[in-house]
Amino acid sequence: MSSHTQPTFERTAGRLSATVRPVPTTPRRSTLLDRALAAHVQRSITDSTVRLELWDRSSPYDSSRPSVGDLVIHDRGTLIGLAVNPDLYFGEAYMAGRLDVRGGLEPVVEALTRTTPLPTSWRARLSRALAVPNTLSNARHNVHYHYDLGNDFYERWLDRELVYTCAYFERPDMTLDEAQEAKLDLVCRKLQLHPGEIVVEAGCGWGALAIHMAKRYGVHVKAFNVSKEQLAFARERAAREGLNDRVEFIDDDYRNVRGMFDVFVSVGMLEHVGLSHFRSFSEVVQRSLRRDRGRGLLHFIGRDTPCALNAWIRRRIFPGGYTPTLSEVASRILGPAGMSIVDVENLRPHYARTLELWSAQFETAKDSVREKYGESFTRAWELYLAGSQAAFATGWMQLFQIVFTPRESPPPFQTRAVLFDPKAPS
Amino acid sequence: MSSHTQPTFERTAGRLSATVRPVPTTPRRSTLLDRALAAHVQRSITDSTVRLELWDRSSPYDSSRPSVGDLVIHDRGTLIGLAVNPDLYFGEAYMAGRLDVRGGLEPVVEALTRTTPLPTSWRARLSRALAVPNTLSNARHNVHYHYDLGNDFYERWLDRELVYTCAYFERPDMTLDEAQEAKLDLVCRKLQLHPGEIVVEAGCGWGALAIHMAKRYGVHVKAFNVSKEQLAFARERAAREGLNDRVEFIDDDYRNVRGMFDVFVSVGMLEHVGLSHFRSFSEVVQRSLRRDRGRGLLHFIGRDTPCALNAWIRRRIFPGGYTPTLSEVASRILGPAGMSIVDVENLRPHYARTLELWSAQFETAKDSVREKYGESFTRAWELYLAGSQAAFATGWMQLFQIVFTPRESPPPFQTRAVLFDPKAPS
Repeated sequence: MSSHTQPTFERTAGRLSATVRPVPTTPRRSTLLDRALAAHVQRSITDSTVRLELWDRSSPYDSSRPSVGDLVIHDRGTLIGLAVNPDLYFGEAYMAGRLDVRGGLEPVVEALTRTTPLPTSWRARLSRALAVPNTLSNARHNVHYHYDLGNDFYERWLDRELVYTCAYFERPDMTLDEAQEAKLDLVCRKLQLHPGEIVVEAGCGWGALAIHMAKRYGVHVKAFNVSKEQLAFARERAAREGLNDRVEFIDDDYRNVRGMFDVFVSVGMLEHVGLSHFRSFSEVVQRSLRRDRGRGLLHFIGRDTPCALNAWIRRRIFPGGYTPTLSEVASRILGPAGMSIVDVENLRPHYARTLELWSAQFETAKDSVREKYGESFTRAWELYLAGSQAAFATGWMQLFQIVFTPRESPPPFQTRAVLFDPKAPS
Repeated sequence: MSSHTQPTFERTAGRLSATVRPVPTTPRRSTLLDRALAAHVQRSITDSTVRLELWDRSSPYDSSRPSVGDLVIHDRGTLIGLAVNPDLYFGEAYMAGRLDVRGGLEPVVEALTRTTPLPTSWRARLSRALAVPNTLSNARHNVHYHYDLGNDFYERWLDRELVYTCAYFERPDMTLDEAQEAKLDLVCRKLQLHPGEIVVEAGCGWGALAIHMAKRYGVHVKAFNVSKEQLAFARERAAREGLNDRVEFIDDDYRNVRGMFDVFVSVGMLEHVGLSHFRSFSEVVQRSLRRDRGRGLLHFIGRDTPCALNAWIRRRIFPGGYTPTLSEVASRILGPAGMSIVDVENLRPHYARTLELWSAQFETAKDSVREKYGESFTRAWELYLAGSQAAFATGWMQLFQIVFTPRESPPPFQTRAVLFDPKAPS
């Protein structure tokens, strides 16, 4: 394989630390021009009550107003970056340590998010038009970039089963472990799995859902993934639990799914597909599901209106990512595949809570992460988790679970009472 | 008012009986050409196993095959109509008595529906482009056309509260009365109404939901409608139940809704709005709902893919009607209004069951309907009910209930358990 499709782990981690540059020479005192620019940036975020502070402790913020927290800008380059392209440079500067936050990262980012207008649709369209297509090799590269950081890294702050998607807090006081298991089971109940049925899973992470379905519901699962590290973990676990005859973990792209299935499920993978590949995704769904009694579930981060992923997240965290609207998924994937939408649940507040718990565990593991992966990597992940929590808390991002069937198939349930049925397997 | 915006009842009923024409002279025996044409029509429906029969009892159907029922064509004009434009002429011929069905109207129509390909998207687009806009006066006219047939007519076959939308069979053995009440309550629970809140209802039918909300949940309701007969009925009922201080029935178009509300609800009205007015509808939703704790519900007949309403239904039953996709509602109404979709439930099988029960009650009342409204009117309604049942049974039509909130508002519930909470008011 070429180094492009299979970058080494070192290279991947390197990309996240490449921005640690020495702070450019900035005069100890801010100039009149610096302060004018700071006042401009402050005005653009004035509704957030986040206070700007320059390297010489001067601030354009009205000191008589209360504030939720401070953005401390350490140099002129960062100030200019924030004025010109805050979407990108906020993250760049934060991870490089050229920008600090006082008053708690999440509350400050949430306040900024809450008061930022959603990008206008022409910006979203332009950004989508410029997106790099997720060809088979790019997709493998992008997945490798994020998911092959080492299982060890994710084990430090995810739940015990390594479920790296929105949990379901069936009761508000559930632990993360409980809420992730509740989510796996919610997905199974929505799909009304029957023993012996055959399920295809497009993008299976570390295998928790595939194993849950096989173990608790007696189905056979073919689970696709292109992350080597995740596959190794999932296979090892399935073998250990004696499920090798019921779960098959396949090292391949979702576009290469072949065969006919009772159930199609994809949790947290659609965000990586990219709008220009929705047609391929649609074709896979159409050709994989039996028409007479098939059903499927898509679980993905979505939007109210079309909007490109934040520029920094795309550059540093999820290359190739796009979070679609419900409408884009309905009209470009499910409609053309001849599918009927049966049920949609927006779990937005559950993702805000999930991210809050991930952040708390990350905080605990921070020193050891910093030691192994370096300072800028650690700061990047800290910001990514806090920013995502803010996006879900403020309604900038949504989490949709869609249940669908081929038009000819009956819906898997007549009323939602089955989702709460204590007689269902658990 | 002009006679155009306010046709008399006689004119409305007349439009539904205008096609009773004497059957054109058709030779007693079918000709070679008739039989060739019949063979052509038979081929187009051959998968349905519906058998065609001509006026001389000849049939192009392979008599060794089983069949679900017969279409009996009484004259050459009907045969030509079915060959050229079956969407329109099936209904026209049936209501005029120039076409009969043997083997049960619903099973035959369902078999035909099940095997008909969905219209291609260019046909749907053309048909949508040619749609007459529902201006304020057209809208009033269209509503009058359907809903002012006389409350007496609807009382013959609807439930006791005159709920003319999909019921909710919380238990499969519910009666129509029980299932309609369960639907009213489901809507209220999805909206999590609190006493004292102010609700606006766009299109309120005979007032059952407005009255249920006010009586059971203690909210204040402003309910809009442009059907004189329905308004008279609703007002009389509210007065009788002592709810005049909590429910106001307003004789006006939804576009004239003014004020700020906690809740926006519209059940079975969006189908009459028409795609070209989705922007106005969106603006009404946006300006009516408070941003900090608002929520809304849309309940409407929808589609998997864009598709014009059947030509005959549009001509005879619902002038101006259009049944949108979930995607059209999300991207043209809710997205632009700054709303987040919280929850979508497709009640398709519930509408098939509702229509089955309506048809059964219509059958019981048929003689008295025929006596008052005439033969073709009765046959038109019979076909409309059977055709609608078939459309929901086969997945040609969907019934979506969408719960939404302004992006800034919290969702009305964290999990769906509240929808099944026995402690909720009932």
